[in-house]
Amino acid sequence: MRAVDIIQRKRDGGALSPEEIEFFVAGVTDGSVPDYQAAALLMAILLQGMDAAETTILTDAMVRSGSKLDLSDIPGPKIDKHSTGGVGDKTSLVVAPVVAACGGIVPMMSGRGLGHTGGTVDKLESIPGFRTNLSIPEMRASLKSIGCVLISQTAEIAPADKALYALRDVTGTVPSIPLISASIMSKKIAEGIDALVLDVKSGSGTFMKTESDSRRLAESLVAIGRASGVRTEAVITAMDSPLGLAVGNAAEVIEALDVLKGRGPQDLIDVSQELSARMLVMGELAPDREAARQMVRSVIDSGAALEKFRGIIERQGGDPRVVDDDGRLPAAPRQHVVTAPASGYVGTLDAELIGRASVVLGGGRDRVDDVIDHAVAIMITAPLGAAVRAGDAVLELRYREQRRLDEALPLVTRALRIADQPPSLRPLIVGEVR
Amino acid sequence: MRAVDIIQRKRDGGALSPEEIEFFVAGVTDGSVPDYQAAALLMAILLQGMDAAETTILTDAMVRSGSKLDLSDIPGPKIDKHSTGGVGDKTSLVVAPVVAACGGIVPMMSGRGLGHTGGTVDKLESIPGFRTNLSIPEMRASLKSIGCVLISQTAEIAPADKALYALRDVTGTVPSIPLISASIMSKKIAEGIDALVLDVKSGSGTFMKTESDSRRLAESLVAIGRASGVRTEAVITAMDSPLGLAVGNAAEVIEALDVLKGRGPQDLIDVSQELSARMLVMGELAPDREAARQMVRSVIDSGAALEKFRGIIERQGGDPRVVDDDGRLPAAPRQHVVTAPASGYVGTLDAELIGRASVVLGGGRDRVDDVIDHAVAIMITAPLGAAVRAGDAVLELRYREQRRLDEALPLVTRALRIADQPPSLRPLIVGEVR
Repeated sequence: MRAVDIIQRKRDGGALSPEEIEFFVAGVTDGSVPDYQAAALLMAILLQGMDAAETTILTDAMVRSGSKLDLSDIPGPKIDKHSTGGVGDKTSLVVAPVVAACGGIVPMMSGRGLGHTGGTVDKLESIPGFRTNLSIPEMRASLKSIGCVLISQTAEIAPADKALYALRDVTGTVPSIPLISASIMSKKIAEGIDALVLDVKSGSGTFMKTESDSRRLAESLVAIGRASGVRTEAVITAMDSPLGLAVGNAAEVIEALDVLKGRGPQDLIDVSQELSARMLVMGELAPDREAARQMVRSVIDSGAALEKFRGIIERQGGDPRVVDDDGRLPAAPRQHVVTAPASGYVGTLDAELIGRASVVLGGGRDRVDDVIDHAVAIMITAPLGAAVRAGDAVLELRYREQRRLDEALPLVTRALRIADQPPSLRPLIVGEVR
Repeated sequence: MRAVDIIQRKRDGGALSPEEIEFFVAGVTDGSVPDYQAAALLMAILLQGMDAAETTILTDAMVRSGSKLDLSDIPGPKIDKHSTGGVGDKTSLVVAPVVAACGGIVPMMSGRGLGHTGGTVDKLESIPGFRTNLSIPEMRASLKSIGCVLISQTAEIAPADKALYALRDVTGTVPSIPLISASIMSKKIAEGIDALVLDVKSGSGTFMKTESDSRRLAESLVAIGRASGVRTEAVITAMDSPLGLAVGNAAEVIEALDVLKGRGPQDLIDVSQELSARMLVMGELAPDREAARQMVRSVIDSGAALEKFRGIIERQGGDPRVVDDDGRLPAAPRQHVVTAPASGYVGTLDAELIGRASVVLGGGRDRVDDVIDHAVAIMITAPLGAAVRAGDAVLELRYREQRRLDEALPLVTRALRIADQPPSLRPLIVGEVR
């Protein structure tokens, strides 16, 4: 088999055979297919597409490029959630302890932020001492002991994805539904889970700008999950403005803790509850979604979910006192308030631009090896739709360096638009794919 | 400027700016754009295309990646011909001495064969002692002295093309009209010529299987030439069966010598005369094509063209006695005759399959570093349209190794079809682009 023949077949719009896909993934993993041939094939896949069968086979080959966990010795349903990435999206920090408090086993591996979207691993690392790089034995021990881990991807899991992702990043081949799908699902399937709920974001702050693209991605992800023996469903959620009122790593941990304490912004509560309830139904821990919502409210009201989060922090080496004392989390020393330029309603708070501004402040990264400042944040003081008078505070930027603030301000100024009329807000849950 | 942004623009179907194209070509030449990014961009160009302006700029950047010859100190019009590659196409060996004998200056750089199409340089190297790797000073001296050189591409000419071609060969990005156009035209423009006649082949034995693809390539080539200040026109010629009756390096030299002696097969005479006449008109050596044809006939009848070829061989270190004595050229020791399986007419002699068979016999190469056997040949004893009886000889294979013959025979058997009716042959000159 020759790589050039595989490239030519995809270039001409043909479907690749299982053997060809296997040859390519194995070759990328062991280096026998050189980068330039992989890059040409990735571009051909992006432009010519892959059908559902090819995408499932690609995913499976990527799973088999590394280890697949076997969690069958741990009692209880293994359930995970994955979000395609947004701005201010800290639902994982709520959902994981809630579902674990309800009896689910949650082996959640997450990524770091790249570009304007944040990453769960970065948020967790704002907790002093918190270790996300558990070994597989440590991970298993945590799952047995408290039913949940929140970790970064280990080297054993889908190494082909690591190699391909690095290449896609520098060759303009990221925004391909089959490639995104295989990347996400290979890592999730390798976790050894029974069920998966996907949160596919749609809107300005996401890869998928339109609802129809988001739906196509959701359908692709669900099809792979099903074909791979993982019960999978997806919700499509709006991401035109940030989720919640905090963007920034430590600030988002605090907001997630708020929700676990029964407080916090309504949009974050709603999305977290929706995802948690679906996970419980998929994991057969609740008979239907209404009963599941009741379980979610109950573990929050009782404090069981909050205690679960404290236990997770403790087991992963973090300072559990952050749960009761925000002051133990890093906070940026300086504040700058952005005010409404006119009276009216907050009509737009563009998620992508606010995400970009957060990166500029130091809260995210443009390149994989950039160092993050967990303390900086953009706080929304007047949310989308709020009535404001000219001069009222809308955003508060918490920053460390003046030059970074200077660079971030034009972005947040562009992100904010005051409207004469209250904006018509689309519902947060845009759709589902089951 | 970042390579990834350039790739993304082309991926999304946009046009690249002159600065972006320059950045890419310079980066490929000096190695600062890595192969994997170049490969992704090449695939994006193949699938999304390039408009005429981009292709001209790409060509110009490739010319400027090396030296452009200045032949202005040599009196007379500098004229060249380029063929897009066929099977049995030895017209260069006829056209170059003919035009030089008529007063043209012909600085012809040619390629080696790759795949089923032959290369002028390989044919010339079947002449004992013939050197195709002249230095630029040697080339200039030859042009001053006898008005013609027949050489391979020097390292100074379009080094970006060398790097890109090697990459295209292994990444499935060869059959792209803009990339083919820029590759051909960059080398020709760098020769410092005033005028160029292109022979764009169309049919089974070529890259361009359909007449409309051939026309698109011809239009692209002519547009680049015009925009680059080189008077350029193209003829589209049929290449469904081999040109002439000989396929194989030494055998093709003998057939070209035949035409220069006023003999040889009519199709080769016709195409050679057409191309030569157009070159003379483009070089302003003849007032119109009819007068030019008369000049061509006259330098053949007088022997001046044959003497010019003898002079070229002499100057380039070859044995000039081959002109009068075929026996001084290599010939394969064994012959195998392929006969008509039925009575009727020779209906098909598929150029691509015969070209493949020639490679298998050792007359061409699959890889750039394969060694060629100049002595092997496939001779057509019953040309397309000839009436044959079952058992009549149609092809003669001149070979060295039995195992190569065994591999070649199924190919030539598939190449040959006997028809009940005489085939309707399309004219050799299919069209023109001026």
